[in-house]
Amino acid sequence: MLYKNLNINEAGHLTFAGNDTTALAQEYGTPLMLLDEIAIRERCREYKNAMEDAFPEGSMPLYASKALSFKRIYEIMAEEKMGIDVVSSGELRTAVKAGFPMENAYFHGNAKTDEDIRFAMENGIGYFVCDNADEMEAIDREAEKRGIRQKILLRLSPGIDPHTHAKISTGKIDCKFGAVIENGQAERLILQALSCKNIDLRGYHCHIGSQIFDHAPFCEAAVMMLTFLAQIKEKHGFCAPVLNLGGGMGVPYTKDEPAIDYAENIRKIGVLVWDTCKELNIPVPVILMEPGRSIVADSGMTLYTVSSTKEIPGFKNYVSVDGGMTDNPRYTLYEAPYTVLSASRTAESADYPCTLAGRCCESGDLIQENVKLPAPKRGDLVAVLTTGAYNYAMASNYNRIPRPPIVMIGENGPYTAVRRETLDDLLEYDI
Amino acid sequence: MLYKNLNINEAGHLTFAGNDTTALAQEYGTPLMLLDEIAIRERCREYKNAMEDAFPEGSMPLYASKALSFKRIYEIMAEEKMGIDVVSSGELRTAVKAGFPMENAYFHGNAKTDEDIRFAMENGIGYFVCDNADEMEAIDREAEKRGIRQKILLRLSPGIDPHTHAKISTGKIDCKFGAVIENGQAERLILQALSCKNIDLRGYHCHIGSQIFDHAPFCEAAVMMLTFLAQIKEKHGFCAPVLNLGGGMGVPYTKDEPAIDYAENIRKIGVLVWDTCKELNIPVPVILMEPGRSIVADSGMTLYTVSSTKEIPGFKNYVSVDGGMTDNPRYTLYEAPYTVLSASRTAESADYPCTLAGRCCESGDLIQENVKLPAPKRGDLVAVLTTGAYNYAMASNYNRIPRPPIVMIGENGPYTAVRRETLDDLLEYDI
Repeated sequence: MLYKNLNINEAGHLTFAGNDTTALAQEYGTPLMLLDEIAIRERCREYKNAMEDAFPEGSMPLYASKALSFKRIYEIMAEEKMGIDVVSSGELRTAVKAGFPMENAYFHGNAKTDEDIRFAMENGIGYFVCDNADEMEAIDREAEKRGIRQKILLRLSPGIDPHTHAKISTGKIDCKFGAVIENGQAERLILQALSCKNIDLRGYHCHIGSQIFDHAPFCEAAVMMLTFLAQIKEKHGFCAPVLNLGGGMGVPYTKDEPAIDYAENIRKIGVLVWDTCKELNIPVPVILMEPGRSIVADSGMTLYTVSSTKEIPGFKNYVSVDGGMTDNPRYTLYEAPYTVLSASRTAESADYPCTLAGRCCESGDLIQENVKLPAPKRGDLVAVLTTGAYNYAMASNYNRIPRPPIVMIGENGPYTAVRRETLDDLLEYDI
Repeated sequence: MLYKNLNINEAGHLTFAGNDTTALAQEYGTPLMLLDEIAIRERCREYKNAMEDAFPEGSMPLYASKALSFKRIYEIMAEEKMGIDVVSSGELRTAVKAGFPMENAYFHGNAKTDEDIRFAMENGIGYFVCDNADEMEAIDREAEKRGIRQKILLRLSPGIDPHTHAKISTGKIDCKFGAVIENGQAERLILQALSCKNIDLRGYHCHIGSQIFDHAPFCEAAVMMLTFLAQIKEKHGFCAPVLNLGGGMGVPYTKDEPAIDYAENIRKIGVLVWDTCKELNIPVPVILMEPGRSIVADSGMTLYTVSSTKEIPGFKNYVSVDGGMTDNPRYTLYEAPYTVLSASRTAESADYPCTLAGRCCESGDLIQENVKLPAPKRGDLVAVLTTGAYNYAMASNYNRIPRPPIVMIGENGPYTAVRRETLDDLLEYDI
């Protein structure tokens, strides 16, 4: 099994965090999104402890909540003393409703509106991660109106491609996010921030990519950012106390992808950060990181019921289920890999090759190609693993299909954290 | 201008169906989805009149409501005496709420659940477009329970690729939808239907693709389907009275795509259908077609407010707006082309090349590349044309971003047909 919270019970059913998935499907219906709360908390602690060990006091992981944002997850993040990164007033509002301490919230995004900025300050946002000059002016204006000095980080673009492990002059600097270091844009944005009397520039942020299984690109980014930090100190006398290295540590979706030791990677980055700061003769900044996928992805699972099996001799077999791109658009968007298992007949031999198709009226609505299952029948239960991140978060009502519930498996068993959308919910906004 | 309902007024603003878009944005906020009700009704009549002229009595267009499904649109379809195609209980429920006469509704999809089938019969669905053997058994069982004979069409796969205009033995028969004609699967499904005593097989359905600008692929599909219909009559004595040719007529999104004369295309298909039936010596079946995109796409427009402009010398300029893949995922999904105009400075020279980027925290969240606008400033209004189909329908709350409203421009001016989602709406399902 791909993860340690998966097993097969005596009935031949798949178990998830100790619970029979067939029983869960019966109780809550399908499609059903499950989340292992204990595994999420363990991963938070792994990040938190590793970062406290590796970096100066105040360093902490921020949960990148765009991976999966709902009220209960912010309660858990508050209890685990994680920070959060939010990217919209909607995420912010949800965190506020959960009672999350907003001084540990960082507001991201390339296109914050005046209303976003107003709403965030009204709710006591800790930091804006300011993306551009237009936004900085808007933050400065709103802070002035309120008589406050607003803390910000600046989103910078170090021009690292995590998948080639090299600084490059194309591609990664061609991006809608942040200010580019190598063409002087970043420096100009810093000078603008330092000249705004209602803005308290605290440091820099970068984000080099996602699904990175190696510490090397993070190390490379850290060195570039620290070197730039030292240059700005040298040139302009501003020594940033905070460096946010963003997110992007990988999660294995299939057996072909490597497992990753998050703590060990953080430790290695830590060693390099201390050494580099010593070389550069600067104090070691507080280090922030923004794990999203690696906090929730492998704690999630989606259960579907099979509707039909169709064999097209000479081509392939299609197994259609009662969900699809509406609850998981990642195959349609990126041909993302997933591991698919039978949940109701897990002990049987998985020798039937097929394509797992969704129920949407769209040919491209596939969940995964080249899957093997025990030859499925209508009514069989199928599990798609690793659906905790960017599944429910990206869900739509395409084809007017209601979104599934999120059922969490906590210390005291399963409970509904987000209820299933009903057909009448779909009509709520129609006049 | 791409469409006749677009113009520029004395203030230099873009007008849509006679309304100043800047005034609409001020009244309703942005992002804002606009729909020209009069244009939608005109297109319905064009299809309906052309089909009545070209085909036998009872022939009609069915609005493929997956393109854009909300209550008001079904009211309009009922008033225009269109049929509808629905693909889920959610679309069906919405049509019922709108008072749509369900005998003219056709239920599509490759993965209908038992609950879908029960719900549809309870609401008096006219026809199921039955996709496969598993589903047929389920329909037969539910009809028996209710003591009715349920009318169905069968979804068949004629193996036509609309973009090569030729019958092919690959690709299009490798599809999750329908039963393949050339390998005998379709014939077996027909025999199964004829043997079910609670099922009333009325005919066949095919759908060859979308964004087709030429009548030729439809003609080819019609000939194949009629030939097959005649073969089944000859071999098994069953002469299907209905043939549904599906949807797929194109809509120009940019000036590079051809305008299309829907009525003329239908007339040409009609001539061929009558000739072919005469040759085959079969009565001309009732012909159905399923336009979705070509009913609503070019009647829609989305307005956005510019948040920031970012120049990356040597690469490109990014203009970020307050919406994106959450309200229009089609560029992210398919790199779909769109025409982008300034709405607040339409009269000015559009000489600033840029990429129109969305507000989501995702590098791929772009609305369109290689756009030209008057050099934009924060607060400028931008219009994206042809957003009536598969935009709101595919909208998500990714990044916890609320969905825009749909404001229709009717005979008596603008009115809200779907209200804007609020931040608190986003919390409605969270427990």
